[in-house]
Amino acid sequence: MGSLATMKKKAKSGKQSKKQKFVYFFGKGHAEGNAGMKDLLGGKGANLAEMTRIGIPVPPGFTISTQACALFYENGEKWPSGLEEEIKTHLAKLEDAMGYRFGDRNNPLLVSVRSGAAVSMPGMMDTVLNLGLTAEVVQGLIVKTENERFAWDAYRRFIQMFGNVVMGVKHETFEHIIEKKKKQVHAAQDTDLQANDIKDIVRQFKVAYQEETGEEFPQDPHLQLNKAINAVFKSWNNPRAIKYRDLNEIRGLLGTAVNVQAMVFGNMGETSGTGVCFTRNPSTGENKFYGEYLVNAQGEDVVAGIRTPEPLDKLKIQMPEIYKQLCKIREKLERHYRDMQDIEFTVQEGKLFLLQTRNGKRTAQAAVRIAVDLVKEKLLNQEEAILRVEAKQLDQLLHPTFDPKEKKEEIAKGLPASPGAATGCVVFNADDAEAQAKKGEPVILVRIETSPEDIGGMFAAQGILTARGGMTSHAAVVARGMGKCCVAGCGDLRIDYEAKEFRVGNNTIKEGDFISLDGSLGKVYKGKLKTIEPELSGDFARLMSWADKMRRLQVRANADTPNDATVARKFGAQGIGLCRTEHMFFEGDRIIAVREMILAQDVEGRAKALEKLLPMQRGDFEGIFEAMDGLPVTIRLLDPPLHEFLPHDEPSQKEMAEVMKVSLEEIKHKVEELHEFNPMLGHRGCRLGITFPEIYDMQVRAILEAACRIKKHGARVLPEIMIPLIGAYKEFTILKDRMEKIAEKVFEEQGSRVDYLIGTMMEIPRAILVADRIAEVAQFFSFGTNDLTQMTFGFSRDDAGKFLGDYLQQGIFEKDPFQSLDEEGVGQFIRWGTEKGRSVRRDLKIGICGEHGGDPSSVKFCHRVGMNYVSCSPYRVPIARLAAAQAAALEKRKKFDRKGET
Amino acid sequence: MGSLATMKKKAKSGKQSKKQKFVYFFGKGHAEGNAGMKDLLGGKGANLAEMTRIGIPVPPGFTISTQACALFYENGEKWPSGLEEEIKTHLAKLEDAMGYRFGDRNNPLLVSVRSGAAVSMPGMMDTVLNLGLTAEVVQGLIVKTENERFAWDAYRRFIQMFGNVVMGVKHETFEHIIEKKKKQVHAAQDTDLQANDIKDIVRQFKVAYQEETGEEFPQDPHLQLNKAINAVFKSWNNPRAIKYRDLNEIRGLLGTAVNVQAMVFGNMGETSGTGVCFTRNPSTGENKFYGEYLVNAQGEDVVAGIRTPEPLDKLKIQMPEIYKQLCKIREKLERHYRDMQDIEFTVQEGKLFLLQTRNGKRTAQAAVRIAVDLVKEKLLNQEEAILRVEAKQLDQLLHPTFDPKEKKEEIAKGLPASPGAATGCVVFNADDAEAQAKKGEPVILVRIETSPEDIGGMFAAQGILTARGGMTSHAAVVARGMGKCCVAGCGDLRIDYEAKEFRVGNNTIKEGDFISLDGSLGKVYKGKLKTIEPELSGDFARLMSWADKMRRLQVRANADTPNDATVARKFGAQGIGLCRTEHMFFEGDRIIAVREMILAQDVEGRAKALEKLLPMQRGDFEGIFEAMDGLPVTIRLLDPPLHEFLPHDEPSQKEMAEVMKVSLEEIKHKVEELHEFNPMLGHRGCRLGITFPEIYDMQVRAILEAACRIKKHGARVLPEIMIPLIGAYKEFTILKDRMEKIAEKVFEEQGSRVDYLIGTMMEIPRAILVADRIAEVAQFFSFGTNDLTQMTFGFSRDDAGKFLGDYLQQGIFEKDPFQSLDEEGVGQFIRWGTEKGRSVRRDLKIGICGEHGGDPSSVKFCHRVGMNYVSCSPYRVPIARLAAAQAAALEKRKKFDRKGET
Repeated sequence: MGSLATMKKKAKSGKQSKKQKFVYFFGKGHAEGNAGMKDLLGGKGANLAEMTRIGIPVPPGFTISTQACALFYENGEKWPSGLEEEIKTHLAKLEDAMGYRFGDRNNPLLVSVRSGAAVSMPGMMDTVLNLGLTAEVVQGLIVKTENERFAWDAYRRFIQMFGNVVMGVKHETFEHIIEKKKKQVHAAQDTDLQANDIKDIVRQFKVAYQEETGEEFPQDPHLQLNKAINAVFKSWNNPRAIKYRDLNEIRGLLGTAVNVQAMVFGNMGETSGTGVCFTRNPSTGENKFYGEYLVNAQGEDVVAGIRTPEPLDKLKIQMPEIYKQLCKIREKLERHYRDMQDIEFTVQEGKLFLLQTRNGKRTAQAAVRIAVDLVKEKLLNQEEAILRVEAKQLDQLLHPTFDPKEKKEEIAKGLPASPGAATGCVVFNADDAEAQAKKGEPVILVRIETSPEDIGGMFAAQGILTARGGMTSHAAVVARGMGKCCVAGCGDLRIDYEAKEFRVGNNTIKEGDFISLDGSLGKVYKGKLKTIEPELSGDFARLMSWADKMRRLQVRANADTPNDATVARKFGAQGIGLCRTEHMFFEGDRIIAVREMILAQDVEGRAKALEKLLPMQRGDFEGIFEAMDGLPVTIRLLDPPLHEFLPHDEPSQKEMAEVMKVSLEEIKHKVEELHEFNPMLGHRGCRLGITFPEIYDMQVRAILEAACRIKKHGARVLPEIMIPLIGAYKEFTILKDRMEKIAEKVFEEQGSRVDYLIGTMMEIPRAILVADRIAEVAQFFSFGTNDLTQMTFGFSRDDAGKFLGDYLQQGIFEKDPFQSLDEEGVGQFIRWGTEKGRSVRRDLKIGICGEHGGDPSSVKFCHRVGMNYVSCSPYRVPIARLAAAQAAALEKRKKFDRKGET
Repeated sequence: MGSLATMKKKAKSGKQSKKQKFVYFFGKGHAEGNAGMKDLLGGKGANLAEMTRIGIPVPPGFTISTQACALFYENGEKWPSGLEEEIKTHLAKLEDAMGYRFGDRNNPLLVSVRSGAAVSMPGMMDTVLNLGLTAEVVQGLIVKTENERFAWDAYRRFIQMFGNVVMGVKHETFEHIIEKKKKQVHAAQDTDLQANDIKDIVRQFKVAYQEETGEEFPQDPHLQLNKAINAVFKSWNNPRAIKYRDLNEIRGLLGTAVNVQAMVFGNMGETSGTGVCFTRNPSTGENKFYGEYLVNAQGEDVVAGIRTPEPLDKLKIQMPEIYKQLCKIREKLERHYRDMQDIEFTVQEGKLFLLQTRNGKRTAQAAVRIAVDLVKEKLLNQEEAILRVEAKQLDQLLHPTFDPKEKKEEIAKGLPASPGAATGCVVFNADDAEAQAKKGEPVILVRIETSPEDIGGMFAAQGILTARGGMTSHAAVVARGMGKCCVAGCGDLRIDYEAKEFRVGNNTIKEGDFISLDGSLGKVYKGKLKTIEPELSGDFARLMSWADKMRRLQVRANADTPNDATVARKFGAQGIGLCRTEHMFFEGDRIIAVREMILAQDVEGRAKALEKLLPMQRGDFEGIFEAMDGLPVTIRLLDPPLHEFLPHDEPSQKEMAEVMKVSLEEIKHKVEELHEFNPMLGHRGCRLGITFPEIYDMQVRAILEAACRIKKHGARVLPEIMIPLIGAYKEFTILKDRMEKIAEKVFEEQGSRVDYLIGTMMEIPRAILVADRIAEVAQFFSFGTNDLTQMTFGFSRDDAGKFLGDYLQQGIFEKDPFQSLDEEGVGQFIRWGTEKGRSVRRDLKIGICGEHGGDPSSVKFCHRVGMNYVSCSPYRVPIARLAAAQAAALEKRKKFDRKGET
């Protein structure tokens, strides 16, 4: 649209041009608005106008624009000048259209007043129905409808809603009166109350209203209307609406529109009714009309759940004509909106009215099926279908879930740290997890928190449960990387490592007991639960094939093991964008050799220990190269500081001393020597390569020896050696020169050569600043946006938890920058790095390998910047593939739009 | 010049144009070179040419260019084509000039072959004298000089030098032969040896030479010359020369030039001699001819220290004519070079020759005096004088020093962490330091290492001595900030806190014993030593007044107390650029209130504790505002993470629990809760302001209340409130809005207003990226280059020690980026931040307040970027003032040069 900004500016400026229009009429087949005007008329208002335009029966009415709402706030909660006049004019128009008059005791017009913002916020804002009723008008209504009970009940409902919504009278005040009356007359249900009972309730309501508000219930319908409009304006900023927008990241809207519409009544007897339906099944996506309705009821009754609604099939029998009409409307709306619709209707004395239509919310499964079906039905082309499915939602389809038929006993709730479902018996440390898993026993690893030493156990487990740590804790990050289900920060758990049990509520779970985790919901259940594996074929596969055709950005995976690599390939990864070698250092006996290397006093000692590691590392790479035959594999050389490989508690240090036959003091001394104040900013990454070059020497040798061997087996091997934490040109050249010498030696020894690249992580701000120089020598860049985000913001992911919540709440950041790339800041770095790099090396291969590589909006950014690929955890590969396709589709559309303009 | 780069490129390209000239002649009043050609001819060669041109008697010769040296390396240690030819031609020219012939047995030409790079590297490279002597030629020399002993001794020296320098024969080999001979003939000194003795020594030398080199001593003078030239070329890259360049940060040179010059002999009897002198006193700068000489000696004898040289006064008596000539030359050289010269001369049989002139090295005191005197003498203008004094050197003049007459007993050596001299009795903790100091006792605080809790004690002490930590350890940084003498990382100290003593070597120093520290040398002495206070008047004051007139950049000081502020003003600070408020939190009882605030469970509890702090903080600010009457004071709000204010060892925690009447567990729990993985990247700076707004509220109130009160006393108060660690626009606006509200409240309460600014530290990379947005609301920027450097490089100052040494040694960084601003990286940020900020707010006040503000080259960068001010520790203010003036002078000069070009 682009007009939102202008509108906002106009609204903010406080200056109104004389011709400013605030109110838009719809009715009798004509409307001033249309579906494209959501920003101004809200979703509801725009669609009411649109439906009117295309000849769908909609009760006439008018919409007061979101801009009026913005000016209302701008003016200190007063209407902008001109609004009152406009409302009056349009009310008269509405009276004409209906042939009724507002406040007329013979032929009264009643209206509904509903909120409706550009983005749907169901239930968050206010609605008043039956507005226009007074003591006098209700008499007219009785005469006109010949239904005394209906009229009094309408009045009762109006006082209740108006009192509560507009004037803040407590719900209980009204409910209490009704309950008392029901007891008094021995009525079991509301419907058992007679006209006179309700009349008495109305009397009591008015008394209560006056007591609580200090004023009489207004008997002027125009005053009622004005107050109701104000209430809707104000409901835009009620706490729950603010909270809802916060939670759903809805920002940048002007306010809510107000829809004033002639009332129709579904509670006028057996030929009336009201219903809600979806044009297709919102759970499965099946192309079947789906909904419920209630005879002789108003909309609120369906929601309130007092009576159980009937399925639509019943309507077909009860009101076949209405059902036929509704089916026609269903088809018309789907053809018109080219999407599954969520509609509300009311039947008043055998006449059908549509009160709302909007694109229906749906599950991921339904989204995929509907998109694919709409292409089959030629309502959409493939490109449009791809844009219809929210990439993030795919996550639901990519992990195991619990069989919905299983009965679940929830015992605790934590953070949904890594999606999926897992069942296993409880173990309390990594060694036990590995031992049990080797026996073929599924296990859940339960820890207060995890550390890098637990990697082996995490890998062996079906799922991970921690008592401490947030969405970006070690457990959460590693689990997501592994595509492993994880519930983190489950604060109620009291874990006793010694007793090997944990308590939560009244439950004591011992080692060996079965529990189940739902990582998508953050829930912990007692006992075994059956899981269902994700289905990646059918409609999903079709949609993904369209996406793959369309996208320009390649999608790789972060994978550290042959197994990860295999999963990644299954999910459609086109290579490995980040293979972390440090995880390999923890496995089995390797850690002993690693520790020997760390304790060594000199180069020789280090070299000796590294020699032991060489064949193991080589084996790892062979497995990965084999799994990725024909696809590139980016291997990052050792990154974490060395102290991460030493134990930090005394028992483990003692154990290590025994195993390694050195004194405890020596180990303690080394731990102290390696201590860092800020490990994130310490002796790690390529700094290790500069000070202890033997380590990288060994790794490069292992990579290239593995590559040569696997090539001999006939596979195509494309290793890309990645140096982490580069910040200066010469850091890179020193390391690269050394690597190239080793490569030549290896090729000579092996009697064969492989093509390989040497590139760098871009994760240090300084590297961006000198990206042009680095690109002279580096053959690829991979933006490590985890670290880059940390350095750019100057806070670490591990520590930011203490204030990030406040920052999001106060709107300092719109999104958690570790979840979704900060385009304003980090994004500038990425643009500069890319431009500077390509200014020197035109075909520089550029990718991203932070967790952002699996976040749809970040993926779209990567596309726009012109990267070659994104890399993400294997389970996010399909999400990235879809997001990449959407980015390409949006770009194409934009180009087309631009062409259209000129 | 600019031509160096071109020259290097040409040299590197390996392509030589046909006309490339490698050899430059000088002699008989004409020279092909001049003083401006140092890059090509080296300092020595250029000055020999220059002296020749201006008519000073110089033995003729020729210079082989540094470019030839570069090509020598480029060609795998072979001469570039054409060089041999050129040398031959110039040798012939030299023979003509002298009337002697190379290798001629009747009239032999002897030459010296000396190195000489563009930058003086005394003693680092090689020299060969008396070249051209052979068994045959020596006979001719005997005939010609009628001095057999002289001739044999010349030959003996030549073989010795050539053998050692060119062929690598060990010194001892030759020395051993001489010693044997001396014993044999009972000669006490070399001069007691007779011609025949020396003749025998020559014979033995030749045998030894052949034994060690496997070849005969060359009897072809041309071969001798070629080998000597190669030796000089090669000496450019001998380990000690490389090390010297490293240490002195000499980079970017092509190589060494080679000077081949006709020999003159100072050892031809009583009418001969050799000497070295300075045209003014290099220690004091006094305008008095200053030097020493030896009769009947060669240059090496003066250096070798075998005989004690005579002062110049003696020359005046012994050779009055020569002395008169020398005085004339002194004057001529000073007038010509317009600087104090360091010259070498030789008298051969009553004839004076100059062998070298160069600008003399001098102490800071001398540099200032000479510069001022040269202006008085109208040899320099003020601008030139300012450029003559190295800003860094001023440091020597700004701190107390030990009386040179005192006898010192050194007991340990550590790092020269903060300059100055201090004497006091030893204390081992901060509390004792404060207690003793209160009694008027000067103390030296001795700690294994210091932490923020020791601030009070550090401040109370005369000097600080630590056993651990480097140049950027807490002790070092804080001490430099305070201008307090500090010796850090004195690893030999064994400190026993319990026994209150430390041992080092055989000394045991107990609490109360006196020691003295030299923070400029890193030395620890036993006992009391008298110190001399720096003298800031006289020439120093004059030079500084010229500097102040010239500079555009203002100089402020980092000062946290009224006392610091007073010192800063004395040193010429034009305001305070950084007043850190956290140090105030440690003093006396305040820490209790601070800890109460930290332990508080809610806003009310915090507010209560902060109320106690308010009057104390206000008092601090009052003192500072008073001291800085009329000058701006930038106050940074609380920056460090809160856990820095809690004790981390159990005894202190227990103590705190008792004082505060809470349980030890509560304190431990809070410490654990506040623990951070990377405190540098944690919950600090304005993040505290966002999450605990009460803290900044209190501080802002304290600042503005103090300002109003002091204003009432008639002082001019200019507070500038600085928010640390800003990374996002909204962070700033939220805090600023809050502050402005408090300001209005305070002004109302006080019944008066003061002007104040609210600005931000620029220390987070993201802040630079959004500097334009921040400048919409921030009234000043102050680049916090300590943190900015850490974030840009991605390493912390505390942890970088583990690899920074390797990085400097391997040339990855030219300088320690924490000492001298990294212009390539961090400098880009500063440029962008400045440009972006001023693009929005044209008059945005911009400064720097990292430690770089006191580093001359960084100050010059700040000038070029267009900052308004730099801020540094009080003791560095004069350095910054001078550096700022130099920057302005250089800029003016550049502009003038550019004008000249057009």
